[in-house]
Amino acid sequence: MNLDVYFTPAELPASGPGDANIVVIDVLRATSTMTEALANGARAVCPVRTAEEASVLAARIGRDQTLVCGERKGVKLDGFDLGNSPLEYTAERVAGKVLALTTTNGTHALLAVAGGRHVIVASFLNLSAVVDALASSGGPAVIVCAGREGRFALEDGACAGAIALSLTERIEGVVLNDAAVAAVALARPVRAAPLSMLRASAGGKALTEIGFEEDLDFCAAVDRHALVPELRDQRVTLTPAGKA
Amino acid sequence: MNLDVYFTPAELPASGPGDANIVVIDVLRATSTMTEALANGARAVCPVRTAEEASVLAARIGRDQTLVCGERKGVKLDGFDLGNSPLEYTAERVAGKVLALTTTNGTHALLAVAGGRHVIVASFLNLSAVVDALASSGGPAVIVCAGREGRFALEDGACAGAIALSLTERIEGVVLNDAAVAAVALARPVRAAPLSMLRASAGGKALTEIGFEEDLDFCAAVDRHALVPELRDQRVTLTPAGKA
Repeated sequence: MNLDVYFTPAELPASGPGDANIVVIDVLRATSTMTEALANGARAVCPVRTAEEASVLAARIGRDQTLVCGERKGVKLDGFDLGNSPLEYTAERVAGKVLALTTTNGTHALLAVAGGRHVIVASFLNLSAVVDALASSGGPAVIVCAGREGRFALEDGACAGAIALSLTERIEGVVLNDAAVAAVALARPVRAAPLSMLRASAGGKALTEIGFEEDLDFCAAVDRHALVPELRDQRVTLTPAGKA
Repeated sequence: MNLDVYFTPAELPASGPGDANIVVIDVLRATSTMTEALANGARAVCPVRTAEEASVLAARIGRDQTLVCGERKGVKLDGFDLGNSPLEYTAERVAGKVLALTTTNGTHALLAVAGGRHVIVASFLNLSAVVDALASSGGPAVIVCAGREGRFALEDGACAGAIALSLTERIEGVVLNDAAVAAVALARPVRAAPLSMLRASAGGKALTEIGFEEDLDFCAAVDRHALVPELRDQRVTLTPAGKA
Protein backbone atom coordinates (compact mmCIF):
# COMPACT_ATOMS: atom_id res chain seq x y z
CA MET A 1 0.00 0.00 0.00
CA ASN A 2 1.05 3.58 -0.63
CA LEU A 3 1.27 5.91 2.34
CA ASP A 4 1.70 9.56 1.39
CA VAL A 5 2.25 12.32 3.93
CA TYR A 6 1.67 15.99 3.12
CA PHE A 7 3.18 18.44 5.59
CA THR A 8 0.72 21.19 4.63
CA PRO A 9 -2.74 21.00 3.04
CA ALA A 10 -1.43 23.05 0.08
CA GLU A 11 0.88 20.18 -0.92
CA LEU A 12 -1.98 17.79 -1.61
CA PRO A 13 -2.15 17.12 -5.38
CA ALA A 14 -4.71 19.23 -7.21
CA SER A 15 -6.33 15.99 -8.36
CA GLY A 16 -7.04 15.18 -4.69
CA PRO A 17 -6.27 11.98 -2.78
CA GLY A 18 -8.19 9.68 -5.13
CA ASP A 19 -9.55 6.59 -3.39
CA ALA A 20 -7.09 6.73 -0.51
CA ASN A 21 -8.10 6.78 3.14
CA ILE A 22 -7.54 10.36 4.28
CA VAL A 23 -6.21 11.20 7.73
CA VAL A 24 -6.01 14.77 9.05
CA ILE A 25 -3.74 15.73 11.96
CA ASP A 26 -3.68 18.91 14.04
CA VAL A 27 -2.05 17.76 17.27
CA LEU A 28 -2.09 21.26 18.83
CA ARG A 29 -4.99 21.21 19.19
CA ALA A 30 -8.01 20.73 16.91
CA THR A 31 -7.87 17.00 16.27
CA SER A 32 -6.86 16.27 19.87
CA THR A 33 -9.77 18.38 21.08
CA MET A 34 -12.28 16.72 18.74
CA THR A 35 -11.22 13.27 19.90
CA GLU A 36 -11.49 14.25 23.56
CA ALA A 37 -14.90 15.85 23.00
CA LEU A 38 -16.32 12.77 21.31
CA ALA A 39 -14.79 10.50 23.94
CA ASN A 40 -16.63 12.57 26.53
CA GLY A 41 -19.97 12.09 24.84
CA ALA A 42 -20.34 14.97 22.39
CA ARG A 43 -22.79 13.86 19.65
CA ALA A 44 -20.81 15.47 16.84
CA VAL A 45 -18.23 18.14 16.12
CA CYS A 46 -18.95 20.31 13.08
CA PRO A 47 -15.83 22.06 11.79
CA VAL A 48 -16.62 25.51 10.38
CA ARG A 49 -14.46 28.26 8.92
CA THR A 50 -15.61 31.35 10.79
CA ALA A 51 -17.02 32.46 14.13
CA GLU A 52 -20.15 33.65 12.36
CA GLU A 53 -20.66 30.25 10.73
CA ALA A 54 -20.35 28.62 14.14
CA SER A 55 -23.04 30.89 15.61
CA VAL A 56 -25.39 30.45 12.65
CA LEU A 57 -25.04 26.68 12.71
CA ALA A 58 -25.65 26.56 16.48
CA ALA A 59 -28.77 28.70 16.09
CA ARG A 60 -30.12 26.47 13.34
CA ILE A 61 -29.58 23.25 15.28
CA GLY A 62 -30.93 24.90 18.44
CA ARG A 63 -28.85 26.64 21.09
CA ASP A 64 -29.89 24.18 23.81
CA GLN A 65 -28.43 21.33 21.74
CA THR A 66 -25.19 23.02 20.81
CA LEU A 67 -21.98 24.65 21.95
CA VAL A 68 -20.07 27.23 19.91
CA CYS A 69 -16.37 26.53 20.22
CA GLY A 70 -13.06 27.74 18.89
CA GLU A 71 -10.10 30.06 19.01
CA ARG A 72 -8.10 32.67 17.20
CA LYS A 73 -4.47 33.15 18.21
CA GLY A 74 -5.05 30.28 20.65
CA VAL A 75 -7.62 32.17 22.74
CA LYS A 76 -11.37 31.47 23.04
CA LEU A 77 -13.47 33.62 20.75
CA ASP A 78 -15.60 36.33 22.37
CA GLY A 79 -18.98 35.06 23.50
CA PHE A 80 -18.15 31.43 22.69
CA ASP A 81 -18.94 28.56 25.04
CA LEU A 82 -15.54 26.88 24.77
CA GLY A 83 -12.10 27.61 23.32
CA ASN A 84 -9.81 24.99 21.78
CA SER A 85 -8.22 23.47 24.89
CA PRO A 86 -9.09 19.76 25.16
CA LEU A 87 -9.16 20.23 28.95
CA GLU A 88 -12.33 22.27 28.59
CA TYR A 89 -14.17 19.47 26.78
CA THR A 90 -15.28 17.55 29.86
CA ALA A 91 -18.28 15.21 29.90
CA GLU A 92 -20.10 17.79 32.05
CA ARG A 93 -19.78 20.39 29.32
CA VAL A 94 -20.10 18.42 26.10
CA ALA A 95 -22.10 15.20 26.65
CA GLY A 96 -25.08 15.05 24.29
CA LYS A 97 -24.17 18.31 22.54
CA VAL A 98 -23.33 19.15 18.95
CA LEU A 99 -20.21 21.32 18.84
CA ALA A 100 -19.63 23.95 16.13
CA LEU A 101 -15.84 24.39 16.15
CA THR A 102 -13.65 26.91 14.32
CA THR A 103 -9.86 27.00 14.74
CA THR A 104 -6.92 28.64 12.97
CA ASN A 105 -5.44 25.59 11.27
CA GLY A 106 -7.17 22.29 11.99
CA THR A 107 -10.77 22.93 11.02
CA HIS A 108 -9.66 24.64 7.80
CA ALA A 109 -7.45 21.68 6.92
CA LEU A 110 -10.32 19.25 7.49
CA LEU A 111 -12.72 21.24 5.34
CA ALA A 112 -10.14 21.84 2.61
CA VAL A 113 -9.23 18.18 2.34
CA ALA A 114 -12.60 16.58 2.79
CA GLY A 115 -14.74 17.76 -0.08
CA GLY A 116 -17.45 15.16 -0.17
CA ARG A 117 -15.26 12.38 1.16
CA HIS A 118 -14.99 11.08 4.69
CA VAL A 119 -11.81 11.68 6.62
CA ILE A 120 -10.23 10.15 9.71
CA VAL A 121 -9.30 12.53 12.53
CA ALA A 122 -5.96 11.66 14.16
CA SER A 123 -3.73 12.83 17.00
CA PHE A 124 -1.45 11.20 19.53
CA LEU A 125 -4.58 10.62 21.66
CA ASN A 126 -5.87 7.97 19.24
CA LEU A 127 -2.68 6.91 17.44
CA SER A 128 -3.05 3.12 17.66
CA ALA A 129 -6.74 3.21 16.83
CA VAL A 130 -5.96 5.12 13.62
CA VAL A 131 -3.18 2.67 12.75
CA ASP A 132 -5.60 -0.22 13.33
CA ALA A 133 -8.16 1.37 11.04
CA LEU A 134 -5.64 1.94 8.25
CA ALA A 135 -4.16 -1.55 8.63
CA SER A 136 -7.62 -3.13 8.51
CA SER A 137 -8.52 -1.20 5.40
CA GLY A 138 -5.26 -2.13 3.69
CA GLY A 139 -5.94 0.50 1.02
CA PRO A 140 -3.70 3.44 0.19
CA ALA A 141 -3.62 6.23 2.76
CA VAL A 142 -2.94 9.94 2.65
CA ILE A 143 -2.03 11.79 5.85
CA VAL A 144 -2.50 15.55 5.73
CA CYS A 145 -0.87 17.66 8.43
CA ALA A 146 -2.74 20.86 9.26
CA GLY A 147 0.60 22.61 9.85
CA ARG A 148 0.87 26.09 11.24
CA GLU A 149 -0.31 28.97 9.11
CA GLY A 150 0.56 27.09 5.93
CA ARG A 151 3.95 25.86 7.13
CA PHE A 152 5.44 22.64 8.46
CA ALA A 153 4.54 21.98 12.11
CA LEU A 154 6.83 19.72 14.11
CA GLU A 155 4.14 18.06 16.23
CA ASP A 156 1.98 17.21 13.21
CA GLY A 157 4.97 15.84 11.30
CA ALA A 158 5.92 13.70 14.31
CA CYS A 159 2.39 12.34 14.65
CA ALA A 160 2.22 11.55 10.92
CA GLY A 161 5.56 9.79 11.27
CA ALA A 162 4.38 7.81 14.28
CA ILE A 163 1.39 6.54 12.28
CA ALA A 164 3.59 5.72 9.28
CA LEU A 165 6.18 3.95 11.41
CA SER A 166 3.58 1.84 13.23
CA LEU A 167 1.93 0.93 9.95
CA THR A 168 5.21 -0.22 8.38
CA GLU A 169 5.78 -2.40 11.43
CA ARG A 170 2.30 -3.85 11.15
CA ILE A 171 1.96 -4.65 7.46
CA GLU A 172 4.40 -5.47 4.70
CA GLY A 173 5.02 -3.54 1.54
CA VAL A 174 4.08 -0.05 2.72
CA VAL A 175 5.53 2.42 0.17
CA LEU A 176 6.30 5.84 1.69
CA ASN A 177 6.52 9.13 -0.18
CA ASP A 178 9.36 11.58 0.57
CA ALA A 179 7.53 13.38 3.37
CA ALA A 180 6.53 10.07 4.98
CA VAL A 181 10.19 8.98 5.05
CA ALA A 182 11.14 12.27 6.73
CA ALA A 183 8.23 12.01 9.16
CA VAL A 184 9.33 8.51 10.22
CA ALA A 185 12.86 9.77 10.89
CA LEU A 186 11.38 12.49 13.06
CA ALA A 187 9.00 10.19 14.93
CA ARG A 188 11.25 7.21 15.60
CA PRO A 189 12.92 8.52 18.81
CA VAL A 190 9.80 10.21 20.23
CA ARG A 191 6.86 8.05 19.20
CA ALA A 192 6.13 6.65 22.65
CA ALA A 193 6.78 9.95 24.47
CA PRO A 194 6.18 12.92 22.21
CA LEU A 195 5.94 15.57 24.95
CA SER A 196 9.49 16.85 24.43
CA MET A 197 8.76 17.41 20.74
CA LEU A 198 5.48 19.18 21.52
CA ARG A 199 7.39 21.47 23.87
CA ALA A 200 10.07 22.15 21.25
CA SER A 201 7.56 23.04 18.54
CA ALA A 202 6.61 26.58 17.60
CA GLY A 203 2.97 25.77 18.32
CA GLY A 204 3.84 24.33 21.73
CA LYS A 205 5.92 27.35 22.65
CA ALA A 206 3.16 29.73 21.59
CA LEU A 207 0.59 27.85 23.70
CA THR A 208 2.92 27.83 26.69
CA GLU A 209 3.38 31.60 26.37
CA ILE A 210 -0.36 32.23 26.60
CA GLY A 211 -0.87 29.88 29.55
CA PHE A 212 -1.83 26.58 27.91
CA GLU A 213 1.21 24.53 28.93
CA GLU A 214 -1.04 21.81 30.38
CA ASP A 215 -2.53 21.27 26.93
CA LEU A 216 0.84 20.00 25.74
CA ASP A 217 0.90 17.26 28.37
CA PHE A 218 -2.67 16.38 27.49
CA CYS A 219 -2.06 16.23 23.73
CA ALA A 220 1.04 14.06 24.27
CA ALA A 221 -0.99 11.28 25.96
CA VAL A 222 -0.48 8.52 23.40
CA ASP A 223 -3.48 6.19 23.02
CA ARG A 224 -5.66 7.86 25.64
CA HIS A 225 -8.64 6.78 23.53
CA ALA A 226 -9.26 3.79 21.27
CA LEU A 227 -11.49 5.84 19.01
CA VAL A 228 -11.51 6.81 15.34
CA PRO A 229 -13.48 10.01 14.77
CA GLU A 230 -14.54 10.45 11.17
CA LEU A 231 -15.70 13.44 9.20
CA ARG A 232 -18.70 12.60 7.00
CA ASP A 233 -21.14 15.14 5.62
CA GLN A 234 -19.23 17.88 7.41
CA ARG A 235 -19.77 16.33 10.86
CA VAL A 236 -17.14 14.52 12.89
CA THR A 237 -18.57 11.58 14.79
CA LEU A 238 -17.40 8.25 16.13
CA THR A 239 -17.64 5.45 13.61
CA PRO A 240 -19.32 2.22 14.62
CA ALA A 241 -15.86 0.62 14.70
CA GLY A 242 -14.56 3.47 16.81
CA LYS A 243 -17.41 3.06 19.27
CA ALA A 244 -16.98 -0.68 19.61
CA MET B 1 21.28 33.13 15.53
CA ASN B 2 17.99 31.96 14.04
CA LEU B 3 18.10 29.29 11.38
CA ASP B 4 14.79 28.76 9.60
CA VAL B 5 14.22 26.03 7.04
CA TYR B 6 11.32 26.12 4.58
CA PHE B 7 10.58 22.83 2.83
CA THR B 8 8.92 24.57 -0.12
CA PRO B 9 9.27 28.13 -1.47
CA ALA B 10 5.55 28.70 -0.82
CA GLU B 11 6.15 28.43 2.95
CA LEU B 12 8.43 31.46 3.09
CA PRO B 13 6.65 34.25 5.00
CA ALA B 14 4.91 36.79 2.75
CA SER B 15 7.05 39.45 4.39
CA GLY B 16 10.13 37.68 3.00
CA PRO B 17 13.29 36.61 4.79
CA GLY B 18 14.14 40.06 6.15
CA ASP B 19 17.88 40.59 6.65
CA ALA B 20 18.69 36.89 6.86
CA ASN B 21 21.26 35.16 4.70
CA ILE B 22 19.25 33.16 2.17
CA VAL B 23 20.30 29.71 1.00
CA VAL B 24 18.54 27.86 -1.82
CA ILE B 25 18.85 24.09 -2.27
CA ASP B 26 17.87 21.90 -5.22
CA VAL B 27 20.09 18.85 -4.79
CA LEU B 28 18.58 17.02 -7.81
CA ARG B 29 19.87 18.85 -9.72
CA ALA B 30 19.87 22.60 -10.32
CA THR B 31 22.06 23.82 -7.46
CA SER B 32 24.43 20.85 -7.84
CA THR B 33 24.71 21.60 -11.55
CA MET B 34 25.32 25.33 -11.01
CA THR B 35 28.10 24.61 -8.54
CA GLU B 36 29.76 22.12 -10.88
CA ALA B 37 29.48 24.53 -13.83
CA LEU B 38 31.11 27.39 -11.92
CA ALA B 39 33.81 25.06 -10.56
CA ASN B 40 34.57 24.15 -14.15
CA GLY B 41 35.04 27.75 -15.21
CA ALA B 42 31.64 28.98 -16.33
CA ARG B 43 31.60 32.79 -15.95
CA ALA B 44 28.04 32.91 -14.66
CA VAL B 45 24.79 30.95 -14.54
CA CYS B 46 21.64 32.98 -15.19
CA PRO B 47 18.52 31.23 -13.90
CA VAL B 48 15.50 31.93 -16.11
CA ARG B 49 11.92 30.75 -16.00
CA THR B 50 11.28 29.57 -19.56
CA ALA B 51 13.04 28.06 -22.55
CA GLU B 52 12.19 31.19 -24.53
CA GLU B 53 13.79 33.44 -21.91
CA ALA B 54 16.93 31.31 -22.05
CA SER B 55 17.16 31.69 -25.83
CA VAL B 56 16.47 35.44 -25.75
CA LEU B 57 19.06 36.03 -23.04
CA ALA B 58 21.67 33.97 -24.91
CA ALA B 59 21.01 35.92 -28.11
CA ARG B 60 21.37 39.25 -26.29
CA ILE B 61 24.65 38.33 -24.63
CA GLY B 62 25.89 36.76 -27.87
CA ARG B 63 25.57 33.11 -28.85
CA ASP B 64 29.36 32.60 -28.98
CA GLN B 65 29.57 33.65 -25.30
CA THR B 66 26.67 31.57 -24.06
CA LEU B 67 25.10 28.17 -23.62
CA VAL B 68 21.36 27.58 -23.32
CA CYS B 69 20.74 24.91 -20.72
CA GLY B 70 17.91 23.21 -18.94
CA GLU B 71 15.32 20.50 -18.71
CA ARG B 72 11.66 19.68 -18.47
CA LYS B 73 10.66 16.32 -16.98
CA GLY B 74 14.38 15.78 -16.42
CA VAL B 75 15.25 15.75 -20.13
CA LYS B 76 17.25 18.36 -22.10
CA LEU B 77 15.06 20.88 -23.89
CA ASP B 78 14.86 20.66 -27.70
CA GLY B 79 17.65 22.56 -29.39
CA PHE B 80 19.42 23.37 -26.11
CA ASP B 81 23.17 23.01 -25.64
CA LEU B 82 23.01 21.22 -22.32
CA GLY B 83 20.39 19.58 -20.09
CA ASN B 84 20.48 19.61 -16.30
CA SER B 85 22.92 16.77 -15.58
CA PRO B 86 26.01 18.07 -13.75
CA LEU B 87 28.04 15.47 -15.66
CA GLU B 88 27.49 17.48 -18.86
CA TYR B 89 29.00 20.63 -17.36
CA THR B 90 32.64 19.80 -18.03
CA ALA B 91 35.36 22.42 -18.34
CA GLU B 92 35.50 21.67 -22.09
CA ARG B 93 31.87 22.66 -22.48
CA VAL B 94 31.39 25.50 -20.01
CA ALA B 95 34.71 27.31 -19.34
CA GLY B 96 34.41 31.00 -20.10
CA LYS B 97 30.72 30.79 -20.99
CA VAL B 98 27.62 32.42 -19.54
CA LEU B 99 24.91 29.78 -19.01
CA ALA B 100 21.19 30.56 -19.30
CA LEU B 101 19.55 27.78 -17.26
CA THR B 102 15.89 26.88 -16.85
CA THR B 103 14.75 23.90 -14.74
CA THR B 104 11.49 22.63 -13.30
CA ASN B 105 12.06 23.44 -9.63
CA GLY B 106 15.43 24.96 -8.79
CA THR B 107 15.64 27.99 -11.04
CA HIS B 108 12.08 28.96 -10.17
CA ALA B 109 12.85 28.68 -6.45
CA LEU B 110 15.92 30.90 -6.85
CA LEU B 111 14.03 33.57 -8.75
CA ALA B 112 11.01 33.42 -6.44
CA VAL B 113 13.10 33.82 -3.32
CA ALA B 114 15.70 36.27 -4.50
CA GLY B 115 13.83 39.42 -5.40
CA GLY B 116 16.56 42.01 -5.27
CA ARG B 117 18.59 40.19 -2.64
CA HIS B 118 21.57 37.95 -3.07
CA VAL B 119 21.24 34.29 -2.32
CA ILE B 120 23.69 31.47 -1.61
CA VAL B 121 23.40 28.36 -3.80
CA ALA B 122 23.86 25.12 -1.84
CA SER B 123 23.99 21.38 -2.42
CA PHE B 124 25.91 18.44 -0.97
CA LEU B 125 28.73 19.36 -3.39
CA ASN B 126 29.55 22.51 -1.40
CA LEU B 127 28.08 21.72 2.00
CA SER B 128 31.01 22.72 4.22
CA ALA B 129 31.73 25.88 2.24
CA VAL B 130 28.14 27.01 2.78
CA VAL B 131 28.34 26.19 6.49
CA ASP B 132 31.60 28.19 6.69
CA ALA B 133 29.96 31.17 5.00
CA LEU B 134 26.96 31.11 7.33
CA ALA B 135 29.13 30.63 10.42
CA SER B 136 31.39 33.54 9.41
CA SER B 137 28.42 35.80 8.84
CA GLY B 138 26.89 34.87 12.18
CA GLY B 139 23.65 36.52 11.12
CA PRO B 140 20.26 34.80 10.86
CA ALA B 141 19.85 32.39 7.98
CA VAL B 142 16.93 31.11 5.96
CA ILE B 143 17.26 27.89 3.96
CA VAL B 144 14.71 27.43 1.20
CA CYS B 145 14.31 23.98 -0.33
CA ALA B 146 13.21 23.99 -3.96
CA GLY B 147 11.17 20.86 -3.32
CA ARG B 148 9.47 18.92 -6.07
CA GLU B 149 6.52 20.50 -7.82
CA GLY B 150 5.58 22.45 -4.71
CA ARG B 151 6.04 19.54 -2.33
CA PHE B 152 8.60 18.34 0.21
CA ALA B 153 11.63 16.69 -1.43
CA LEU B 154 13.64 14.25 0.66
CA GLU B 155 17.07 15.14 -0.76
CA ASP B 156 16.56 18.87 -0.26
CA GLY B 157 15.31 18.37 3.29
CA ALA B 158 18.32 16.18 4.07
CA CYS B 159 20.75 18.75 2.66
CA ALA B 160 19.07 21.55 4.63
CA GLY B 161 19.35 19.39 7.73
CA ALA B 162 23.02 18.65 7.07
CA ILE B 163 23.73 22.39 6.91
CA ALA B 164 21.68 23.04 10.06
CA LEU B 165 23.34 20.20 11.95
CA SER B 166 26.86 21.30 11.02
CA LEU B 167 26.05 24.87 11.97
CA THR B 168 24.74 23.89 15.40
CA GLU B 169 27.97 21.96 15.98
CA ARG B 170 30.05 24.94 14.91
CA ILE B 171 28.46 27.84 16.75
CA GLU B 172 26.48 28.14 19.96
CA GLY B 173 22.95 29.36 20.35
CA VAL B 174 21.54 28.42 16.95
CA VAL B 175 17.73 28.54 17.24
CA LEU B 176 15.98 26.19 14.80
CA ASN B 177 12.43 26.51 13.52
CA ASP B 178 10.17 23.45 13.31
CA ALA B 179 11.27 22.45 9.82
CA ALA B 180 14.94 22.84 10.74
CA VAL B 181 14.46 20.45 13.70
CA ALA B 182 12.85 17.90 11.39
CA ALA B 183 15.55 18.39 8.75
CA VAL B 184 18.27 17.73 11.33
CA ALA B 185 16.56 14.49 12.40
CA LEU B 186 16.50 13.44 8.76
CA ALA B 187 20.12 14.40 8.06
CA ARG B 188 21.82 13.05 11.16
CA PRO B 189 22.29 9.44 9.99
CA VAL B 190 23.08 10.28 6.34
CA ARG B 191 25.01 13.55 6.40
CA ALA B 192 28.37 12.07 5.43
CA ALA B 193 26.94 9.63 2.89
CA PRO B 194 23.66 10.88 1.46
CA LEU B 195 23.55 8.59 -1.60
CA SER B 196 21.09 6.14 -0.04
CA MET B 197 18.68 8.99 0.65
CA LEU B 198 19.04 10.36 -2.86
CA ARG B 199 18.22 6.90 -4.19
CA ALA B 200 15.18 6.62 -1.90
CA SER B 201 13.78 10.01 -2.92
CA ALA B 202 11.04 10.47 -5.50
CA GLY B 203 13.33 12.75 -7.49
CA GLY B 204 16.12 10.20 -7.41
CA LYS B 205 13.83 7.40 -8.53
CA ALA B 206 12.48 9.51 -11.39
CA LEU B 207 16.01 10.34 -12.58
CA THR B 208 17.04 6.68 -12.38
CA GLU B 209 14.04 5.71 -14.47
CA ILE B 210 15.05 8.04 -17.30
CA GLY B 211 18.68 6.97 -17.26
CA PHE B 212 20.36 9.51 -14.97
CA GLU B 213 21.35 7.16 -12.15
CA GLU B 214 24.96 8.42 -12.32
CA ASP B 215 23.74 11.90 -11.46
CA LEU B 216 22.71 10.61 -8.03
CA ASP B 217 26.25 9.45 -7.25
CA PHE B 218 27.57 12.75 -8.50
CA CYS B 219 25.15 14.89 -6.46
CA ALA B 220 25.93 12.86 -3.32
CA ALA B 221 29.63 13.82 -3.41
CA VAL B 222 29.82 15.80 -0.18
CA ASP B 223 32.31 18.71 -0.31
CA ARG B 224 33.50 18.11 -3.86
CA HIS B 225 34.00 21.87 -4.10
CA ALA B 226 34.94 24.54 -1.54
CA LEU B 227 32.87 27.14 -3.35
CA VAL B 228 29.94 29.38 -2.49
CA PRO B 229 28.04 30.41 -5.62
CA GLU B 230 25.88 33.46 -5.07
CA LEU B 231 22.96 34.88 -6.96
CA ARG B 232 23.26 38.66 -7.35
CA ASP B 233 21.47 40.72 -9.96
CA GLN B 234 19.95 37.54 -11.37
CA ARG B 235 23.37 35.97 -12.10
CA VAL B 236 24.97 33.17 -10.10
CA THR B 237 28.73 33.61 -9.81
CA LEU B 238 31.48 32.67 -7.41
CA THR B 239 31.96 35.17 -4.62
CA PRO B 240 35.47 36.41 -3.89
CA ALA B 241 35.42 34.30 -0.71
CA GLY B 242 34.21 31.33 -2.69
CA LYS B 243 37.05 31.73 -5.15
CA ALA B 244 39.72 31.95 -2.49
